Amino acid sequence: MSPGRRCAGPDGNSPVRTLKLVVAYDGTEYAGWQRQPNGVSIQQLIEEAFASFTPGEPPPAVTGASRTDAGVHAIGQVASVRVPFSHPADAVLRALNARLPEAVRILDAADAHASFHARRDARRKRYRYRIYRAAVLLPMLRLYVWHVPGRLDLDAMREAAARLVGTHDFAAFQASGASVATTRRTIFRFDLVETGDELHLEVEGDGFLRHMIRIIAGSLVDIGRGTRTPAWLGEALDGRDRRLAGQTAPAAGLCLERVDYDAS
Amino acid sequence: MSPGRRCAGPDGNSPVRTLKLVVAYDGTEYAGWQRQPNGVSIQQLIEEAFASFTPGEPPPAVTGASRTDAGVHAIGQVASVRVPFSHPADAVLRALNARLPEAVRILDAADAHASFHARRDARRKRYRYRIYRAAVLLPMLRLYVWHVPGRLDLDAMREAAARLVGTHDFAAFQASGASVATTRRTIFRFDLVETGDELHLEVEGDGFLRHMIRIIAGSLVDIGRGTRTPAWLGEALDGRDRRLAGQTAPAAGLCLERVDYDAS
Repeated sequence: MSPGRRCAGPDGNSPVRTLKLVVAYDGTEYAGWQRQPNGVSIQQLIEEAFASFTPGEPPPAVTGASRTDAGVHAIGQVASVRVPFSHPADAVLRALNARLPEAVRILDAADAHASFHARRDARRKRYRYRIYRAAVLLPMLRLYVWHVPGRLDLDAMREAAARLVGTHDFAAFQASGASVATTRRTIFRFDLVETGDELHLEVEGDGFLRHMIRIIAGSLVDIGRGTRTPAWLGEALDGRDRRLAGQTAPAAGLCLERVDYDAS
Repeated sequence: MSPGRRCAGPDGNSPVRTLKLVVAYDGTEYAGWQRQPNGVSIQQLIEEAFASFTPGEPPPAVTGASRTDAGVHAIGQVASVRVPFSHPADAVLRALNARLPEAVRILDAADAHASFHARRDARRKRYRYRIYRAAVLLPMLRLYVWHVPGRLDLDAMREAAARLVGTHDFAAFQASGASVATTRRTIFRFDLVETGDELHLEVEGDGFLRHMIRIIAGSLVDIGRGTRTPAWLGEALDGRDRRLAGQTAPAAGLCLERVDYDAS
């Protein structure tokens, strides 16, 4: 740890520093990343796991790069947290994992620049949406895929997905009722990858609207089944109205794989 | 269906025929394959799923090729069942899956020779034991692997595994208290395959004693960690005493992948 990574705390004594956490979770039994009045969130679990480091004080606020929905998984969520204690990052990692349920794991913990903010500083996020295509769903996959048996026209799906790459107003692919400053987002890459009985949608972008990848996945499956055309997806994009796009695919198929930041 | 695959039932009217089922299950929440006084078994679930086909009668007895333990998984268990109704096999498959929990799936159902017996006729079984080696266990794998972080000497493990291939008395690798006519078994193949952060033990044999693969897996990990030598495993085999072999690896890592029969 360099001295520049710490500064005096509010009382002038405790060092305050910022930790960067890489977090994996099985979202099945949780209410999503963000703290909720009803239901246990991943954020809450991690904040509570910090409590033993700050006895007598409220636990520190943990900020996630992405507010994943209930049932969505992660193997590379990134979180930032400012803490007033000086334990080495790897000791913090071990202590958190000892307190967290096995469905939530801290994969990495490291000191970061004091101003590091996991959400504001995120530059690129990669998600994977898993579609399982065999006739009968394997039990071990049931919480991690969307089961779509039957024929899918992958050429049509790829043609439609290519239309989404670039910077667009994705208002048609946002959950009804969601509200954000802008619905413009950039998709850097959108690949459909076949692997065994699965079809994976690999998506990288600078950020995603609420339900955006799930609505895109649902729309692409409509196209794959032949009930919609690739051109329809472009029309939905241009129309900027949620009612123009397709169904919202189930949360279980989605996983946040990584979040990239500028080198610091 | 050829006429030879049916014969008259007890009342001289209902056709009686034998079905061969291929079954997958997530064993996490069940008491194993075999019916138990305490706990729900896979066998019981499948037998109960047949009940609607035989109203007013006890459901037919379902025989599995392997009596997998509690927590052990399967993607290729085979079961046989004699049934008095004539619905097509694919309709039976759909009806069973509609009644079974998602953790248990019939992957295939087909008419078999009337005398087909899933356990007695099995010639070759393939199991996979999954060891996860990274420092922190990924949440999505926690029910399907044994987490063994740290260095493993794969050369030593392979040398020891090779010693087990062939026909031997595996009494040292049988759960204490288990009783069988003979403890001789043949292992046709035993491979250690590295795949990403996982090490898979792929084992094929003509049959396995209770806990045999889990005791072998536990013993191989002792050897990989360097607390035991490959020669020790040979001595345990020769000694035919459970106390000579290593720890029993957790059930979660084990999966029954396929069962082969003579072509009929």
